[in-house]
Parts: sequence; structure tokens; C-alpha cells
Amino acid sequence: MQIVDLIKKKRDKQEHTPEELKFLIDGTVDGSIKDYHLSAWLMAAFIQGLSIEETTELTKLMAYSGDVLDLSSVPGIKIDKHSTGGVGDKVTLVLAPLVASAGVIVAKISGRGLGHTGGTVDKMDAIPGLRTDLTIDEFLHQLKTIGISLIGQTQNLTPADKIFYALRDVTGTVESLPLITASILSKKIAAGADIILLDIKYGSGAFMKTFEDAKKLSEMLVTVGKKLGKSVTTAISDMDQPLGFTIGHTLEVIEAIETLKGKGPQDLTKLCLRYAAILLHKAKKVKTIEEAEILLKKNISNGKAIEKFREFIEAQGGNPDVINNYDLMPKAEHHIDILSEHTGFVTQLSAIDVAETAKLLGAGRDRKEDKIDLGVGVELKIKRGQKVNKGTLLAVLHANSLKHIEKALLLIQHAYVIGDKAPLNPPLIKEIIS
Amino acid sequence: MQIVDLIKKKRDKQEHTPEELKFLIDGTVDGSIKDYHLSAWLMAAFIQGLSIEETTELTKLMAYSGDVLDLSSVPGIKIDKHSTGGVGDKVTLVLAPLVASAGVIVAKISGRGLGHTGGTVDKMDAIPGLRTDLTIDEFLHQLKTIGISLIGQTQNLTPADKIFYALRDVTGTVESLPLITASILSKKIAAGADIILLDIKYGSGAFMKTFEDAKKLSEMLVTVGKKLGKSVTTAISDMDQPLGFTIGHTLEVIEAIETLKGKGPQDLTKLCLRYAAILLHKAKKVKTIEEAEILLKKNISNGKAIEKFREFIEAQGGNPDVINNYDLMPKAEHHIDILSEHTGFVTQLSAIDVAETAKLLGAGRDRKEDKIDLGVGVELKIKRGQKVNKGTLLAVLHANSLKHIEKALLLIQHAYVIGDKAPLNPPLIKEIIS
Repeated sequence: MQIVDLIKKKRDKQEHTPEELKFLIDGTVDGSIKDYHLSAWLMAAFIQGLSIEETTELTKLMAYSGDVLDLSSVPGIKIDKHSTGGVGDKVTLVLAPLVASAGVIVAKISGRGLGHTGGTVDKMDAIPGLRTDLTIDEFLHQLKTIGISLIGQTQNLTPADKIFYALRDVTGTVESLPLITASILSKKIAAGADIILLDIKYGSGAFMKTFEDAKKLSEMLVTVGKKLGKSVTTAISDMDQPLGFTIGHTLEVIEAIETLKGKGPQDLTKLCLRYAAILLHKAKKVKTIEEAEILLKKNISNGKAIEKFREFIEAQGGNPDVINNYDLMPKAEHHIDILSEHTGFVTQLSAIDVAETAKLLGAGRDRKEDKIDLGVGVELKIKRGQKVNKGTLLAVLHANSLKHIEKALLLIQHAYVIGDKAPLNPPLIKEIIS
Repeated sequence: MQIVDLIKKKRDKQEHTPEELKFLIDGTVDGSIKDYHLSAWLMAAFIQGLSIEETTELTKLMAYSGDVLDLSSVPGIKIDKHSTGGVGDKVTLVLAPLVASAGVIVAKISGRGLGHTGGTVDKMDAIPGLRTDLTIDEFLHQLKTIGISLIGQTQNLTPADKIFYALRDVTGTVESLPLITASILSKKIAAGADIILLDIKYGSGAFMKTFEDAKKLSEMLVTVGKKLGKSVTTAISDMDQPLGFTIGHTLEVIEAIETLKGKGPQDLTKLCLRYAAILLHKAKKVKTIEEAEILLKKNISNGKAIEKFREFIEAQGGNPDVINNYDLMPKAEHHIDILSEHTGFVTQLSAIDVAETAKLLGAGRDRKEDKIDLGVGVELKIKRGQKVNKGTLLAVLHANSLKHIEKALLLIQHAYVIGDKAPLNPPLIKEIIS
């Protein structure tokens, strides 16, 4: 078999056999297939598409291209959750302890982020001492003892995906449903959990710009997941405006803690309760979603949820005192108030503009080696649908350097669109597919 | 400007601006654009196509990506000829001295071959002492003194094409009309001649399998050539069976010499006379093609054509005695007769099978560094349309090693299809476009 013949086949819109895809992935990992071969194949696959059968096979091959975690030594059903990424998306920080507080094991492998803000692993860095580079043995031990652990992606997990992803990023082949499906699902399969919840964000601040695209991706993820014997549920949720009120690492950890204490923003609380309930139901801890929500709300009000988060921080070497003393986390030196220039209703609050503002302040990175400023970010005071007057406080910028502040001020003003009439707010969770 | 944005543009079937194409070619040559970027772009361009405007701009940029020969110090009109490559294609060896014998300057830059048999530069190696690595000064001096010179591609000519071509070969992006057009024409423009004849072969032994594809390529070459101010003529000719009776380096040089002496095969003689006549007419040496053919035939019969070839060999350091003593060139040790197994008419003589046979004997190369055996090859005794009996001598294999001889014997038998009825022979030259 020759890679050039495989490339020509996909170029001509023909379907690959499982043997051909195996040849592709094996060669990718052992280095016999070069970057320039792969990027030609990726472009051909982007334009000509991959069938469900090809996507399923590719997902499986990518999942098994490196180590696959064996969680069978941990008794009970293990759940995992993944988000396609949004602005102010601190769901994992709330959801994981919340689910674990109800006795379902959360075995979560997260990545660092590229772009506007960091990923979950980056956010964890705001908690002093907390380690996400646990060994697999430490990870398993923690699952057995406290039922929750969160680690960064290890070197040996889905090496084929790592190579593919790095190339897709620089060759304009990211936005392909089959390639996205294979990338997301292969990582989740390699991570070993039994039940997987995928949060598919759509809107200006998300990877998928429209509900239609998000729905197509969701259906493909569920279909391919099922073919591979995994219980996959997707939730399609709005990311046209940021989730919650904070964007930035320390700020988001604080908001997550507040939510676990029952004092979080309504949208974030609602989303986390719903997702946690779905997972409890899938794990057969409860008979109905409603029963699950009652149990979870109780765990917030009786302190079990925040207590689980405390346990988690401590187990991973972090300082659990942050829960009651936010000043232990990195803070920004300057606070800049943003006032409304108009009177009316906030008809739009652009997630992407808010994200770019946060990035200008230092909360994001362009390259893996860039350093994130954990203390900076944007604190929203007003969200979509609210009425404002000229001079109303819209948001507060948390900044250390004032280098890009002028641009940041323009951008955050641009994020708010003020109109005459209150907008129709779309539902936060648009559809659940499983 | 970012290369990933250019890739996305072509991926989405959008048209590039001249500035974007300049960015692409500049970055290709200076190395800032990497192989994996280029192969993604090439695949996108292959599938989504390039407009005539894009192809023209790309051709120009590629032509000027390195040195462009300045032939203006040589008085008179300079012609160049290129073939898309066929089996037994020794046309340049006949055409160049024939045209030069009529007083039109032939400034020819040729490549080495990859695949079944070598290119013109490889064939020249069969003449002892002959150098094709002349300096540009030597090349120009020879054009001024004897009106004919042939050299290999220099390092600095069209570096962008060299990079593109190497990548296209391994990424399944060769058979794209715009990319082929830019590759062929950029090299011819950089080579500096005024009048260009392109021999577009079609059929089993050619790059273009059908007349339709050959015609599309021809039209694109002429159109783009015109836009770039070059007189380009294409001739579409049959390559379903080999040209002439010989395939292999020494064998082809001998056949070319015989043709220049007026004793060559009918098909090769006819093709060369026609092409030479077109070039003489384009160069305004004669009023009509017919007048040109009369002049050229005279130059063959009065010895001027073969004398020009002698001068050329001598000027480039070769031993001109080869003209009368073929034993001075590399020969094969073994001669193996191939007899017909059937009685009937040769309805097909597969050029590709004959080429593969020659390659098995050692006449071709897979990689640039492979060594060619100049003495080996296939000598056909019977061609398409001829009547044969069981036992008629079809061909003679000239071999040194008998390593692959069994496979070669099977293949050459397979090349001949014997049927009941004489086939309709297609015209040798199907169409001239200018």
C-alpha cells in the first residue's frame, strides 16, 4: 500500500477500506507518512468528506493509536464530559464536583487552551499548588478514594490526534465534521470513561457558528459513539453571549466556587444542574432527570458539592483555603469600569468580542509556549436582555499591563449592542441528543 | 497575509489575487511556507481548480521565481520544444538539428526522466563524451556559433516549480490542468526562447490518457502562453503505441541518427518534419508549411541535417564518430527474440506495456539517484496494424541483466494484442493548436 494512492482515492471522493485507514494512522504515528502527505489527505478529506463508516473506523484507530486508559480497576460507572469550547465556559469546574458529590465517578482528562482563553487545565493553575500532571496510578487511586480526578492529557494518549490536530490548525482543515468527530471521540474513548457528555456550543463565541452545524456535529458524535459501543450524549447550548459573568482564570474559578455554594449566576447554575442530572440518570443513580435535579440542588444547599470540590483540590495538592479566601489566587492590579454610552436594552453581547478583550488583557495564548496571565479577565455586570441607562456599569476589566488597554476598551464597548426593544432570549440549552 | 488564510480561500473555491499568489510563490522559494502548507494548498487547487487568470499569474510568478535566461545577445529568433513525454519519444534528437539545419536557432533546455525511460538529457548520455552541463556562457556562445545547443536544467531555473513538482509527485496532485500548465510554461518562459512548440502526447503511454484531456491542456497552454506574450503552439499526437521502433537510450539515439539520414521510421520522420515545418513557419523562415517541409526534406537528403547533428555533438564535447559507428555507444549483452504466439493483425501495441518492459530491463528510474542502463531497451519489429503469423518476430529485447527477464517476456507479449481484423489506425498528429 502506498500513501499517495490513498490520497488520490480520497481526492477522487472514494471510500477508504478499514485496512487503508489503519495504514494511514499507523504511518502517521510511526512517522513513515510525512506531514506533507497528511496535509494533502486532510484537505482531500475536508473537501470530499468521510462517510460514517470511515469516521467510525478513523475514530477507533485514533483512539487506539496510543495508550487507552483502563479504568476497570475502579468500581462503578465512570463519566467524562467535554465541551467544544466557549467563552466563560467553567462548566467542568462546577459539574465535576457536583456529579461526584452524588456518588458518580468523574474521570476527567482535559487539555490546555489555544485562543481566547485557556482550557480547564489552565484554569486549575489559578489554585495555588494544584497539580494536573498526576500519574495514571495517582489518577486511579484518587478515583477510588474520592471519586473525582482531573488531569491534563498525557503524552501517550491519542498521538495520531495530536499530529492531525497540529497539522489541521495550520492547513485550514479544522472545520470538518468527520475530522472533529474523530478528534473529540478518540480522546474520550482513550480516556476510558463509560458515559460521555459532550457540550456542543454554538454562536459567535463558539467553534460552530450556527445551530444547524452544531446539530450535525452532535448527530455524528452520537452515531459514531454508538457504533463504538459508548454511551454518548450531546447537549447543544448557546454561546452567543458568554456563560456566566466572568471570563479569565481566577475570575472563573471564583464564579465556579460561588455556583457550588449556591450563589452562582442563573445561566451557569441551570446548565450545570441539567448536565449533572443527565449524567446521574445515564449512570442509573436515579430514575428520572427530575429526581436527579432535586438531589443535586440538595447537595448544593447542604454543602456536599463544595465539600467535594475542597476534597478534590486537596487531593491534587492544591490549597483548599481558596474556597473561602479568593485572595489566595492570582489577582489583577487594575480594575477599569466600563460604562454604557447609551440607554436601552442590551440586544446583543458578543461572546467573541468579550473573549478577544480578555485575550488582549493576557488571558489567552496564540502558541503552546505562550504564558497566560491567570489574574486578568473580564467581569460582566450586565448581560443580554437587561435594561441600561447611559452611565450604567456594564463590565469591569481586570488588567495587569495597560499595553493593549485602548484596544480592549473599544472592543468591550463593541461587544454590547444597545437597542430600543428587549431581545428574545434564545434557550440556553437548545437540544439534547443521545 | 497568512498562508492558512490562502489555503482556506482555495479550499472554499475562491479566486486568489495576484498579491496572494506572489505571497505563495515567494514563501515557497524562501522556505517560510512549509511543505505541509503547500501540499494542502495543492490539493485544494487540484480539487477546486484555478481560473485562467490565476493560472497565468502563477505561471509568471513561477517563471520568475529564479533565473530567467536572457537570449537577447543571440541574434535571430530562438525556438524551444517540449514534449509531455511518451514512449520511444526521441523527437527532440531529430527535430533540433533539423530545424537548426534550416537556419533557425534551437535553444533547448531538457530534463532527466523519471519513470519508464529517461529524458532527452539521459539519452544524450549514450553519446560518449557529450556534456549537457554547459555553463550559460557556453550555451549562448554555441547558439551564436552553430545555432543549436541543448543543456540540462540548471539549479536556479524555476525553483518554485522544482518544489511544487516534487511535492505534487508524492501527494497525488500531478494531474491538474492548471498546475501542469504553470509547470510546463514557467520552465519554457524561464528558458527564454521566442517560439515554443509543445508536443502533447495522449494515449496509454502518455500522461494524458484521452484526446479530450490533451485538448483541454493544449488550449490552456496556448491561452496562458498568449496572455504572457509567448508564441505557443501545441501539437496533440498519439501515444497509444510507441513512437518509432526503439525504446531505450542508445537504441533511440541510433534511430534518431537514422532518421536524420533519411532512413528513419515513417511515423517518426513524418512527425519531426511536420513539427520542424511549423517552427520554421512560425519563425518566418518560409511563407508556408509546405515550403518548409520541402526545404527540410532537402536538408535530410543533402546531408545538412545529419551534419548539423555532428556539429552539435562535437561542440558539446561528444564523439561525432557515433554517427557512422553505433558500436561506440553502450550496448546490451543479450538479445532475446520475441515471437508471435498467434496469427492475425496487431490491433493494439500498448505503449505503457512496452515502456514497463524497457524499465524492467533497466532503462528507467524510480528515484533521481537511480542509475540508468543506457545500452538496454526494446526494439520493436512489428507495430500496430501489421499482419503477423504464429512465429513472426515481434520484438527484440536488449538486456544486460536477466534478473527480471521472465516478467519482461510476459509483459512484452501482453503489449501485443492480435486480432482478426486490421485496426483503424488513428492519425499520428491529431490536432495543432496555436
